[in-house]
Amino acid sequence: MLKRDDIDAVIVSSPWEWHARHGCDAMRSGKIVGMEVCGAMTLGECWDYVRTQEETGVPIMMMENVCYRRDVMAVLNMVRTGLFGEVVHAQGGYEHDLRGVLFNDGQSAYNSGVDFGEKGYSEAKWRTNHYVNRNGELYPTHGLGPVATMLNINRGNRLVRLSSFSSKARGLNNYIVQHEKGGSNHPNAHVNFKQGDVVTTQIQCANGETILLTHDTSLQRPYNLGFRVQGTQGLWQDFGWGDPDQGFVYFEREMKHSHRWESSKEWIEKYDHPLWKRYSKEAETAGHGGMDFFVLNSFIECVKNKLPFALDVYDLATWYAITPLSEMSIARDGAMMEIPDFTSGAWAEREPVFATDDRY
Amino acid sequence: MLKRDDIDAVIVSSPWEWHARHGCDAMRSGKIVGMEVCGAMTLGECWDYVRTQEETGVPIMMMENVCYRRDVMAVLNMVRTGLFGEVVHAQGGYEHDLRGVLFNDGQSAYNSGVDFGEKGYSEAKWRTNHYVNRNGELYPTHGLGPVATMLNINRGNRLVRLSSFSSKARGLNNYIVQHEKGGSNHPNAHVNFKQGDVVTTQIQCANGETILLTHDTSLQRPYNLGFRVQGTQGLWQDFGWGDPDQGFVYFEREMKHSHRWESSKEWIEKYDHPLWKRYSKEAETAGHGGMDFFVLNSFIECVKNKLPFALDVYDLATWYAITPLSEMSIARDGAMMEIPDFTSGAWAEREPVFATDDRY
Repeated sequence: MLKRDDIDAVIVSSPWEWHARHGCDAMRSGKIVGMEVCGAMTLGECWDYVRTQEETGVPIMMMENVCYRRDVMAVLNMVRTGLFGEVVHAQGGYEHDLRGVLFNDGQSAYNSGVDFGEKGYSEAKWRTNHYVNRNGELYPTHGLGPVATMLNINRGNRLVRLSSFSSKARGLNNYIVQHEKGGSNHPNAHVNFKQGDVVTTQIQCANGETILLTHDTSLQRPYNLGFRVQGTQGLWQDFGWGDPDQGFVYFEREMKHSHRWESSKEWIEKYDHPLWKRYSKEAETAGHGGMDFFVLNSFIECVKNKLPFALDVYDLATWYAITPLSEMSIARDGAMMEIPDFTSGAWAEREPVFATDDRY
Repeated sequence: MLKRDDIDAVIVSSPWEWHARHGCDAMRSGKIVGMEVCGAMTLGECWDYVRTQEETGVPIMMMENVCYRRDVMAVLNMVRTGLFGEVVHAQGGYEHDLRGVLFNDGQSAYNSGVDFGEKGYSEAKWRTNHYVNRNGELYPTHGLGPVATMLNINRGNRLVRLSSFSSKARGLNNYIVQHEKGGSNHPNAHVNFKQGDVVTTQIQCANGETILLTHDTSLQRPYNLGFRVQGTQGLWQDFGWGDPDQGFVYFEREMKHSHRWESSKEWIEKYDHPLWKRYSKEAETAGHGGMDFFVLNSFIECVKNKLPFALDVYDLATWYAITPLSEMSIARDGAMMEIPDFTSGAWAEREPVFATDDRY
């Protein structure tokens, strides 16, 4: 495929351990790359993306769909309007019960059994092995991407250091033991899953903000990316799947009452982002509540018009790097780890470009 | 007062910087001590409490009222009943807009001006100086105490290490500048507040659980201690002032629907703790939603009946120690800090005794 000359661009959505090879090989073959979310296997991979992009000049986009979630974009709009004052703290995460994805019966994908690896089907074939062999913030970009655009990371600001802590690992074993096709005598009941059930990661930014990420995918729980954006004048706390009803806001200046949460619904609607206003019809039938339309639209518009990606190789390397750095931190009992500056100093001068209008 | 022989017990509710001297002097004078919440100024103070108690044999109680909050005690009840399965992660914090407490006009206590220190009145006289000179988890016990009882800290489990990160400090300066009695020319507008607006602290327990604390008192926001208790079979997330309506739970086994939050109200009522069932009438008019009744009742019952305190000197030293350790961690860019074992090994054998029945 890489040798064909009738292909302009590729999207890499392979198992995590193949992303770097697929992405870098594609760039070296002159194919523009759209990169699906995950975290890197090593810090070296992150540098490979950057070096390969810089050497080949072939663009690569970090295709983080949650950056385009309707409420997230409305909040980005509010941040830029100044409704939050100066932002000082943000949170996000991936808090999603994946047990029915990580295990199946080898024939149908979801909630069908307790097999994985060789005996598993679809994602269970490869994804679950990461939970056996690793312990870290395995899936940082859904939580980090949206707040990174609000904090202008790699564009006037950057991630400086982190520390990660991991709880014990109980959820996956518990699932296997309790499943009707599992039980305490099932061979997988004796697998030692290394990945802690809840991994938290504290991040410090160059401009003094803090970011807190939570990875929580091995336990029974409702889905929640747990966003929080907090500034001197405003606070947003999210509790659900992009549903504006499942969020709270507090804006002291704008609210007559004192110290009480208000549903985010009206605020999200009032500050609807121009992109969503323009494309909400087209997005209606797209995946993940419409946000997949926007990330694909952005990719295709940039490819067609030869425009630079708003989420580029430096965002990809920085966000992906959280995974190996968090693994190193946890392996060192929560030690602080420096986060590399993949822009080699250019972050200070780069301007914010993500979703600054209604184009892509 | 310490020389009088008609006083059996004292409650120390002095400014934070005097707690250790007042508490240890009282023990040395044979007065039983009830210690108000805060964090220690130094780790040495924590050891002073322990050594003085061990040498004098005079009991000292950690008077953490939030351990007795009705919803918190119901959740403790649920944890002990096994509703959460094995608990793996917990959160708590002190997220309370204190700006109107930290500043006043020198004559009335709350929301009346932008003065503090020499010119301030009541708490503003001393409390605000901690925000000028320190940066850490200044008020750990409201968030930590309740989850510590659920995780049997110092009684079969212990806190092992932590890492703290701090956001930039903007809230207090912003408050002074925007206040009608302040402004950018007010002398206090030039004070350099060291305390970051949002401080998060990750803690690891000996039995593998993680605890996350948040200190957030310098910004506009609704009050919220932000509790979260998460186990293999259950999850509780709190959003308000002990109001069972302002919490969500998820119990996969007990709920017919899948992956949706449910209000905690019915669950909190169903698992109402025996202490609250017995004393809810008496607590009705007590401070802080009734919980002050229980902490005072516990203190007085133990003093009268010469019973050991359920929240004792080891809890006091351990919880207070979070403050200086978090300051050290932040001063070292989030470095991991070991948490001393103030029980000198006894934690492994000590049995849980907090609120095991309806007595105190």
